[in-house]
Amino acid sequence: MSASEVNDGWGQVGELMHDWCRSLFPITRSITGEGVRTTLEFISRKIGGDFILNEVPTGTEVFDWVVPYEWNIRDAWVENEQGERIIDFQSNNLHLMGYSEPVDQWLDLEELQQHLYSLPEQPEAIPYVTSYYKRRWGFCLSEQHRQSLEPGRYRAVVDADFKPGVLNYGELVIPGESSQEVFLSTYVCHPSMANNELSGPVVTTAIARWLQSLPDRRYTYRIVFIPETIGSLTYLSRNLDHLKTHVIAGFNVSCIGDDRCYSYLPSRAGNTLADRAARHALHHIDSNYLRYTWLDRGSDERQYCAPGIDLPVASIMRSKHGKYPEYHTSLDDLSLVTPSGLEGGYNALKSAIEAIEINCRPMATCLGEPKMSKRGLRPTLSRVDSIEEDNILIMHLLTYSDGERDLIEIADLINIPIKQLGEMVRLLADQSLIRI
Amino acid sequence: MSASEVNDGWGQVGELMHDWCRSLFPITRSITGEGVRTTLEFISRKIGGDFILNEVPTGTEVFDWVVPYEWNIRDAWVENEQGERIIDFQSNNLHLMGYSEPVDQWLDLEELQQHLYSLPEQPEAIPYVTSYYKRRWGFCLSEQHRQSLEPGRYRAVVDADFKPGVLNYGELVIPGESSQEVFLSTYVCHPSMANNELSGPVVTTAIARWLQSLPDRRYTYRIVFIPETIGSLTYLSRNLDHLKTHVIAGFNVSCIGDDRCYSYLPSRAGNTLADRAARHALHHIDSNYLRYTWLDRGSDERQYCAPGIDLPVASIMRSKHGKYPEYHTSLDDLSLVTPSGLEGGYNALKSAIEAIEINCRPMATCLGEPKMSKRGLRPTLSRVDSIEEDNILIMHLLTYSDGERDLIEIADLINIPIKQLGEMVRLLADQSLIRI
Amino acid sequence: MSASEVNDGWGQVGELMHDWCRSLFPITRSITGEGVRTTLEFISRKIGGDFILNEVPTGTEVFDWVVPYEWNIRDAWVENEQGERIIDFQSNNLHLMGYSEPVDQWLDLEELQQHLYSLPEQPEAIPYVTSYYKRRWGFCLSEQHRQSLEPGRYRAVVDADFKPGVLNYGELVIPGESSQEVFLSTYVCHPSMANNELSGPVVTTAIARWLQSLPDRRYTYRIVFIPETIGSLTYLSRNLDHLKTHVIAGFNVSCIGDDRCYSYLPSRAGNTLADRAARHALHHIDSNYLRYTWLDRGSDERQYCAPGIDLPVASIMRSKHGKYPEYHTSLDDLSLVTPSGLEGGYNALKSAIEAIEINCRPMATCLGEPKMSKRGLRPTLSRVDSIEEDNILIMHLLTYSDGERDLIEIADLINIPIKQLGEMVRLLADQSLIRI
Repeated sequence: MSASEVNDGWGQVGELMHDWCRSLFPITRSITGEGVRTTLEFISRKIGGDFILNEVPTGTEVFDWVVPYEWNIRDAWVENEQGERIIDFQSNNLHLMGYSEPVDQWLDLEELQQHLYSLPEQPEAIPYVTSYYKRRWGFCLSEQHRQSLEPGRYRAVVDADFKPGVLNYGELVIPGESSQEVFLSTYVCHPSMANNELSGPVVTTAIARWLQSLPDRRYTYRIVFIPETIGSLTYLSRNLDHLKTHVIAGFNVSCIGDDRCYSYLPSRAGNTLADRAARHALHHIDSNYLRYTWLDRGSDERQYCAPGIDLPVASIMRSKHGKYPEYHTSLDDLSLVTPSGLEGGYNALKSAIEAIEINCRPMATCLGEPKMSKRGLRPTLSRVDSIEEDNILIMHLLTYSDGERDLIEIADLINIPIKQLGEMVRLLADQSLIRI
Repeated sequence: MSASEVNDGWGQVGELMHDWCRSLFPITRSITGEGVRTTLEFISRKIGGDFILNEVPTGTEVFDWVVPYEWNIRDAWVENEQGERIIDFQSNNLHLMGYSEPVDQWLDLEELQQHLYSLPEQPEAIPYVTSYYKRRWGFCLSEQHRQSLEPGRYRAVVDADFKPGVLNYGELVIPGESSQEVFLSTYVCHPSMANNELSGPVVTTAIARWLQSLPDRRYTYRIVFIPETIGSLTYLSRNLDHLKTHVIAGFNVSCIGDDRCYSYLPSRAGNTLADRAARHALHHIDSNYLRYTWLDRGSDERQYCAPGIDLPVASIMRSKHGKYPEYHTSLDDLSLVTPSGLEGGYNALKSAIEAIEINCRPMATCLGEPKMSKRGLRPTLSRVDSIEEDNILIMHLLTYSDGERDLIEIADLINIPIKQLGEMVRLLADQSLIRI
Repeated sequence: MSASEVNDGWGQVGELMHDWCRSLFPITRSITGEGVRTTLEFISRKIGGDFILNEVPTGTEVFDWVVPYEWNIRDAWVENEQGERIIDFQSNNLHLMGYSEPVDQWLDLEELQQHLYSLPEQPEAIPYVTSYYKRRWGFCLSEQHRQSLEPGRYRAVVDADFKPGVLNYGELVIPGESSQEVFLSTYVCHPSMANNELSGPVVTTAIARWLQSLPDRRYTYRIVFIPETIGSLTYLSRNLDHLKTHVIAGFNVSCIGDDRCYSYLPSRAGNTLADRAARHALHHIDSNYLRYTWLDRGSDERQYCAPGIDLPVASIMRSKHGKYPEYHTSLDDLSLVTPSGLEGGYNALKSAIEAIEINCRPMATCLGEPKMSKRGLRPTLSRVDSIEEDNILIMHLLTYSDGERDLIEIADLINIPIKQLGEMVRLLADQSLIRI
């Protein structure tokens, strides 16, 4: 599948990403283990040879944290006295609490209840529950399911390995003309859920393919596929100096696949290049996009924008984590995330990246307005309304080309997509009317 | 009466302050004279030995002004031909124009009228009138009263002394860990009126006692009880260098005893620490508090914030001077000023001072988010809504602890009272997660 | 006619300017030629001997442009086979496209149509059309008129000269105490139209006479009467260094003669002294004045505020160019522009200039409030509402006299016209209470 397929119109990239979601959905991902590696290998096949799989051993200190034991799960269930599996990890990997410790034990229903998790207010949903840093075991099930359990004896089995291993993450660097970098981060640690979080990895994979397909890029792109929190902390702890000196803008890619709305969450600083590009892009896609504040953060931006880290990382989302009813339940599935939802998210992120690529700080070379008519950029005949919209836009661009404003600011002043201005910048630069 | 009584819940400090008002109400205060001294002695008894009574001789130049003659009044009345006192200073000291010169003279009603002051639009109110810097005499009475005067001969008597003396003011310094100062100023020059102005002195006295009762204070507190205008100018002229180099925030305490509303008047600079603390405190007491502008000034902030003085002095009030109908009349009495009104004013001023005491500029020590679960500050189990409000707040505090924002700004960003954050600051500092 | 006539009340200066418009209206102006010179000579007679007529030869390079051939028109018409003039330049000079090349040619109606310009949506209006920099010829007529043309043969005659000559402009420097300059620019290149543009030259002429009539001026005034675009570019190319080092504020004077509204168009920088003075003046004339943005520019501000030129030039207008239906048609006539419309425009521009003349940065000399009563600026008797509005204003002025705020800012804070403050500034300076 060639990279150009990614770019061919609406249906195709959306369907393609949705296909990837369907392939990845059943895998049992967690912050470590086989599921992460299988997922990264899938992505590697889509992206190609530059994709590097890194591993960091259990016990490695990362800032205030330590890389935990690797967790691998083979099977897990609860069976009744008749030997019937009444809660079965094989049917939905959300049934098992993430990082459950191994167990094989008979219990009364009452004892079992201590290990069960359900959502009384969403009786049909299996909740997503984890206990990464404290050893326990548990099963998750719908409230309806739970209510149907009858008194009796139950056998709970978690057939898992808990031992020193590695934390895995994938990393891709796509070089550009400049060593300055645009940074993208997404996660690969969620089991069978779709918006949070297969949408992030698949949109990021598609963006990576689009970037690879470009004949040239102004900036270098650094793209990481990591487990949330411990992964971003691990990545930061190994690369902080490089990131702080190279990254001019970044995006945390998460919750970017449903059809409901577009959302923006700022960096902590609030007005970085990433923020400005994100707002510019979203404004021209749907000016009613939701603007969250830093108080609403909840994903890896928490690490990337932490005090002392201070990377310029903003978030472009569809329905934001924690703000849609299916969040962190079995209802966050492949009917919620759609081809068009993914495609919209992909296009929004792509527009923001394009804004960064196109952005420059043009400086007019002429004193006064240039004589545009001799360049065919203005009619020679002057009458009311004889000037075309494009001629007006080019004069707006010229008048704001003062070497202080950048193109995003100019586009925002004129209220047009920066892409339109980008073409005019090239035209004016070709005619030596601006320096960039 | 111990200082702790001041702090014991609602009714008590309000009632206590209202008691003080009742004791002080009958005293005939002016910008100089016995009334000021009696008032200061009363306050001294409440505050104790560190309270210093200062005196500045008549004729002392203070900036553009000169300390005037001291004025002492023994008695004053207007009697009719039958010898009946028909206007009597003994019944209400507002009946006599402040700083009236001595007189003993028979006049026709028509001549007498030249010396009478009333308010046609408030026919039951005796107006408060003074003539500090021009020698005249006069009597103030209600319009109803004035209308009842019959033609005839009247004897006007003002038995007053007008001679070189002193201007008095009281001063209290309560030391703190830092030599930086919080400055409080209130006045003791108004005769029998309550909101403007017994509320200021009694609330300031209660605040002084509260500050004295604290086991320690971060800042030093400088508190002055002065006559308005000439007193603040006098104090400034003697202490300007010290104040400019030590005062980090100050409040002019006036009109702080009725029940109607809360009011804020900014410093001239508008965004000093005092302003920010005042707005923060009032926002969490009653977010509909009235915000005046510097154009509405009218009390000693005029001097403290004058060009070249430039002290960071804001005002927290209940009904502001000039903005309530009873202002500067006999209707501004002890029914207008109430225990609950005084208590509310006291608490607002106390909250602003606490905000200043608590304020700091925290700096996170960890790169990335610390692992809160190992410190018991986050549940080890992760599921939707498993994080408690307090855990969220502490993460908000941490993420904004960048060494640039101060705690008032952080509290305003999160929209919670700074006191709540103060406790978390201590917790995080104890765990070495922030430096302050 | 003495300069004082200009200042004598409402009717007179408006009527005077309207008279000038009537005299100038019939003249066929263009960017070069006799019409410009006749117009400048008329203005010279009104302004007097300091008015300098400059000429710049055809072929002179001005930035990206070149001064074009001079164009002079003797006569132009279209006649039918009966020799009847059916389109006649003599009846309205808008009938001829500006800068039409000479022609004498018989054509079919169909061929003639290629050279005709009309406005289907304004069937009674003759449009204003020019072709300065491409050789063509054309006639303009109302759509109604055009519809009445019958098939047949027509003779088109343009009896014009097109040859090397000069570009003319007028320049007046009125010296002031300071060598810093206020710059006014208006144009003299439009044929028989009134708001755009006889209003600019006549209002500017009246302003020049008013400035000349003043006993003294703080600033030097530089006033130019130029053809639009090529004229301002020419003037800038010859005077840029001087203008950049001397001009503190400037106004482009155009579209300032109708009765409908007041309009403001900012400089590109947006908050220069000219902008602040314009907004201050208009706010106190009609606070509903229209505020355009730099995106709405369209007159010589395009050159004066171009990147690298960056002069502080704002625009005060009545109905803005391009924003009224009669714009650039024969309907923009002397019924649209009225004595009261011109007078309003004149007064608005005069107010802005006065704001600049009055503006200063006062600094209080006293610490604390001065004792105003001893200077007669405050009553010696203090009672509610005893202070007059003027006494309050003077205290506002004093408190803001901190050497940082200028008088326009102070007037805006207090929300009064700066002229009122100007009188108080003199009073306070006379009493040595402020330094300016």
